[in-house]
Amino acid sequence: MTHIPSPSRPLTEGNFCHQLATELFPLCRSITGPGVRETLDILGSHLPGLTRHRVATGYQAFDWVVPDEWIIRAAYIENEAGDRIVDFANHTLHVIGYSTPIDQWMTLEELDPHLYSLPEQPDAIPYATSYYARWWGFCLSHTQRSGLKPGNYRVVIDSELRPGHLDYAELILPGESTEEIFLSTYVCHPSMANNELSGPVVVTALARWLMSREKRKYTYRIVFIPETIGSLVYLSKHLDELKNNMIAGFNVTCIGDERAYSYMPSRRGNTLADQVATHVLHHTDPDFVRYTWLDRGSDERQYCAPGVDLPVVSIMRSKYGAYPEYHTSLDDLEFVTPAGLQGGFDALQQALIVLENNVFPKVTTLGEPQLGKRNLYPSFSTSSSFASVAVLKNLLSYCDGEMSLLSIAETIGEPVTSLLAMLDTLREAGLIEYR
Amino acid sequence: MTHIPSPSRPLTEGNFCHQLATELFPLCRSITGPGVRETLDILGSHLPGLTRHRVATGYQAFDWVVPDEWIIRAAYIENEAGDRIVDFANHTLHVIGYSTPIDQWMTLEELDPHLYSLPEQPDAIPYATSYYARWWGFCLSHTQRSGLKPGNYRVVIDSELRPGHLDYAELILPGESTEEIFLSTYVCHPSMANNELSGPVVVTALARWLMSREKRKYTYRIVFIPETIGSLVYLSKHLDELKNNMIAGFNVTCIGDERAYSYMPSRRGNTLADQVATHVLHHTDPDFVRYTWLDRGSDERQYCAPGVDLPVVSIMRSKYGAYPEYHTSLDDLEFVTPAGLQGGFDALQQALIVLENNVFPKVTTLGEPQLGKRNLYPSFSTSSSFASVAVLKNLLSYCDGEMSLLSIAETIGEPVTSLLAMLDTLREAGLIEYR
Amino acid sequence: MTHIPSPSRPLTEGNFCHQLATELFPLCRSITGPGVRETLDILGSHLPGLTRHRVATGYQAFDWVVPDEWIIRAAYIENEAGDRIVDFANHTLHVIGYSTPIDQWMTLEELDPHLYSLPEQPDAIPYATSYYARWWGFCLSHTQRSGLKPGNYRVVIDSELRPGHLDYAELILPGESTEEIFLSTYVCHPSMANNELSGPVVVTALARWLMSREKRKYTYRIVFIPETIGSLVYLSKHLDELKNNMIAGFNVTCIGDERAYSYMPSRRGNTLADQVATHVLHHTDPDFVRYTWLDRGSDERQYCAPGVDLPVVSIMRSKYGAYPEYHTSLDDLEFVTPAGLQGGFDALQQALIVLENNVFPKVTTLGEPQLGKRNLYPSFSTSSSFASVAVLKNLLSYCDGEMSLLSIAETIGEPVTSLLAMLDTLREAGLIEYR
Repeated sequence: MTHIPSPSRPLTEGNFCHQLATELFPLCRSITGPGVRETLDILGSHLPGLTRHRVATGYQAFDWVVPDEWIIRAAYIENEAGDRIVDFANHTLHVIGYSTPIDQWMTLEELDPHLYSLPEQPDAIPYATSYYARWWGFCLSHTQRSGLKPGNYRVVIDSELRPGHLDYAELILPGESTEEIFLSTYVCHPSMANNELSGPVVVTALARWLMSREKRKYTYRIVFIPETIGSLVYLSKHLDELKNNMIAGFNVTCIGDERAYSYMPSRRGNTLADQVATHVLHHTDPDFVRYTWLDRGSDERQYCAPGVDLPVVSIMRSKYGAYPEYHTSLDDLEFVTPAGLQGGFDALQQALIVLENNVFPKVTTLGEPQLGKRNLYPSFSTSSSFASVAVLKNLLSYCDGEMSLLSIAETIGEPVTSLLAMLDTLREAGLIEYR
Repeated sequence: MTHIPSPSRPLTEGNFCHQLATELFPLCRSITGPGVRETLDILGSHLPGLTRHRVATGYQAFDWVVPDEWIIRAAYIENEAGDRIVDFANHTLHVIGYSTPIDQWMTLEELDPHLYSLPEQPDAIPYATSYYARWWGFCLSHTQRSGLKPGNYRVVIDSELRPGHLDYAELILPGESTEEIFLSTYVCHPSMANNELSGPVVVTALARWLMSREKRKYTYRIVFIPETIGSLVYLSKHLDELKNNMIAGFNVTCIGDERAYSYMPSRRGNTLADQVATHVLHHTDPDFVRYTWLDRGSDERQYCAPGVDLPVVSIMRSKYGAYPEYHTSLDDLEFVTPAGLQGGFDALQQALIVLENNVFPKVTTLGEPQLGKRNLYPSFSTSSSFASVAVLKNLLSYCDGEMSLLSIAETIGEPVTSLLAMLDTLREAGLIEYR
Repeated sequence: MTHIPSPSRPLTEGNFCHQLATELFPLCRSITGPGVRETLDILGSHLPGLTRHRVATGYQAFDWVVPDEWIIRAAYIENEAGDRIVDFANHTLHVIGYSTPIDQWMTLEELDPHLYSLPEQPDAIPYATSYYARWWGFCLSHTQRSGLKPGNYRVVIDSELRPGHLDYAELILPGESTEEIFLSTYVCHPSMANNELSGPVVVTALARWLMSREKRKYTYRIVFIPETIGSLVYLSKHLDELKNNMIAGFNVTCIGDERAYSYMPSRRGNTLADQVATHVLHHTDPDFVRYTWLDRGSDERQYCAPGVDLPVVSIMRSKYGAYPEYHTSLDDLEFVTPAGLQGGFDALQQALIVLENNVFPKVTTLGEPQLGKRNLYPSFSTSSSFASVAVLKNLLSYCDGEMSLLSIAETIGEPVTSLLAMLDTLREAGLIEYR
């Protein structure tokens, strides 16, 4: 695992994201319940216009049914001496998500099938859930588990599984066009940082940047949902709109550490979203990891399912499942850093900038334009000014009205973002025009 | 030359094929004559429904004319002591195919231009023919030839070239569809095993397996013909039918040794037959040899000729011309083995299974189906059951009604044959449907 | 830099070209003026039918305006002793192209900003111009410049910039078809050999060969123009004709040294001209250099500009900018040789032969033709005659009426030129037909 150089610009958004993640970290999120609602409350305080939605438990979303709401108030294991040796109050990962209630004394032998630990990572508390099969259990470090002495233990889980709601939030930012760019992230993971607080906090920062812009070409549809069941619920309500309007979408997850950049394609693999993501990542980190559809594991499973087939990809730092801290208590706010979050924010921001500026420029002259008479040639020739003129001429040479700026940028080997100022200059000089 | 591991299953078909080859080996097959008819008699005894056909010599097949029938009764060289030092009775390869009759004493010097041997393979009797130019000659080992002493020799070839017929046989196995799969092999080579008894015996075993099946999706057209002139004759009579009905065809040759697997493409190179052959061979032996159209040399020269262009390929073991025993007495029933024939049978059988099952499956749900509630998730997670669920999910994720099962299998890197049981399970669970 | 083996055939055209280049070398060509006219006079003496054209200065060609005509009569720097230490009479490169007139004494310090030399190539006189910005200056070797002593110098440039004309010449060689092949080269470079006398002299030799042919399938349009402004002027007058008629074009430049073969693609990169050029170069020198559109620098900038998009490529020896002698006095008639010019001529000639013979042959039989009865099989089998039959059979096997001869040649790995005799034989034998 290599360490990617941190972005050299100030970590403005990275710091904002890390602070927001710190605030959200202790909440016990799950696919339903108070933790999700508290999380959406906090996100809403940063995002004016964020709208809350809910469906009742039992709601049918395609092949799935929204399960009962889960409320967890307390959970601990007490030894005979009255010490709470494992306590949800210390870490939300200690209780298995969707654990049924219990309050009972039992022997270690009876307790053991309900304990989960990782022998290979003896200091990590694993993350486990049992959404659709009723069960209860505790997660703890293997070191602690190995030290448990035979005897009697009081097992308390003060939880409830009852009819209620699945909550999510949506933010629509209208643009000049009704065509949409989609951002989706999830709010169902308890106290873990890369997977998954990085997604919600980076999307919040992106939304704030989008709101601050004078104009947006495209409309943005931004959703904060529980993974899987949440995206299925959302699709069940908005599939036609999404299919009609979406030009590109990003499922934002695992975007906060510093070890790598990576890319999860859409199922079809060649959508505009795929092209933009690989373009930006190539210029961010030439060694970025290209996963395939066979490596999928997040909401692209729903957004790109056969018959749904939305152009949704992921730009990630270290992918879920691809770092040892994944789904353990080690995925924390030291692993996720302001610099890591800033790098993730930057890559996604650039992807949006590329999409907003993906015009089809066309030269207004036949034959090469004469740059000299327009002072577009460097008056004093330095090698850097000449390099810049070479890029400008290459850009111009492909402005045929048929190639998009992204396609031109790929052909001449430059990032789109480095061509935007040139494009403005050329348009002001009357040398190119575009829609 | 590497030795490919033998199939681990019982050599049921391999043994059948080797036994049948042993029975056919001594016959002196050529493109016409009694040897072909005796061969077809024996094949017919294993294949109820095999129909015999013939055209008269002089028949015009496109640019070619069927030559006179060749009858060979005896052929030998006798020395002055009265010893038959070279005798067709010992090996059919000793006489050049289509040799004209002769009975004459001559000196070694006069005899020499009519002798054929291989200095580089001194113990092998070469195989030679002169179908269209009248000639006579003997083939013998170079060791023997080098030992011939000057003197007089009596040369006897008791042969006849006279009007008659070209014989071939055809077996039609009707299926649910009138679309056809074509199998062609040739019966014109005398006592050699890989090229060519392996083809007729493996095709016989395949035909018997096809006849034993409860139902066939496609109709099978299976022909046993002399090479070149036979396929031209067959095409001259059936070209329109073949062009209208054939979805894939296999020219079966050199399918009985254990050294390699190899593939001869169709002229166009990307037909369904090509896709199936390379899929099966890749999963049979990742190191299989991919020949190109420039390496052609068997009946694909006719079946894929410009204007004919049938989707015909060859799945082979060691290709004609690519093994030192080729076209010599060393291509015998030790070189061709039950295990080698079984491997060839298996590859072709799998190709037919892939074709019969090449459906376009489509999921019945939008978004991922919930496997858990259908007990399609392993209840106890072992790594092998999880691997199998991963394959099932990958399969499902491509069931969009547009990709064939073959295309899905290629995309997820699994052999089609390993997906068939899963496909049944998914259809029974109502999760997919297909034509 | 490797040395490519010289063509083994006599250097007939190479010697003609080198001699013509020697005659043209001393003339001071520029984009306008007497040097261009004298050059066109000499070329015209070898090319009956070469037609002269001119446009007035001030003529608007798309985004460009033809500048004043430049007449240069003398130019020198005299020291206080009265010695002409730098003199245009010795080498035309000594004066910057389009230098304004001057006759003035000045100090070395005042003179220095008008002097150009190459510290890294101290013995070379550089080539410089200032067509569109009024300026004057001298080019000299860095060795000489370093030896200049402080003092006063008389600077004389006896030049004129005045209204006049831009001259060029055109040769149309009609063919059976009105479809055209285009050859363009430029006549604006003073005393340099590879860039650029090699282009005009090789094009002259090609035109003479074309005129000598009994028949031409295509019409040839051959132009001798100044670079950039000349091709823009030509396009401004003939764009529609060129777009309607041109099937392939060659911008001929840097075609006379022996170090390399190279290729500049068209902007679209996959035109017939591109296919022919890469085919011929591959068989001329498998290591030929493939440049990309990003390496462009000659008149393809105009011919392939967006909206113009003619199928124009360059077949070159060492490309402009890719050899150290480029744009200096070292690019002389020792660097450019008869063998180098012959190699360049041969490659371009072969490209034209490929274009003239790029038919779509179709076999007249179904199935393989029988070669034996037509004596197309070698009667005595030598390995070379068998190799030749193998090529003939491969050729025949692709004569489906859909593949061009070029496409067949690429598929079977043979140069088109080696197939022409076979094609004639096959047509005479009635085995193929084509338009």
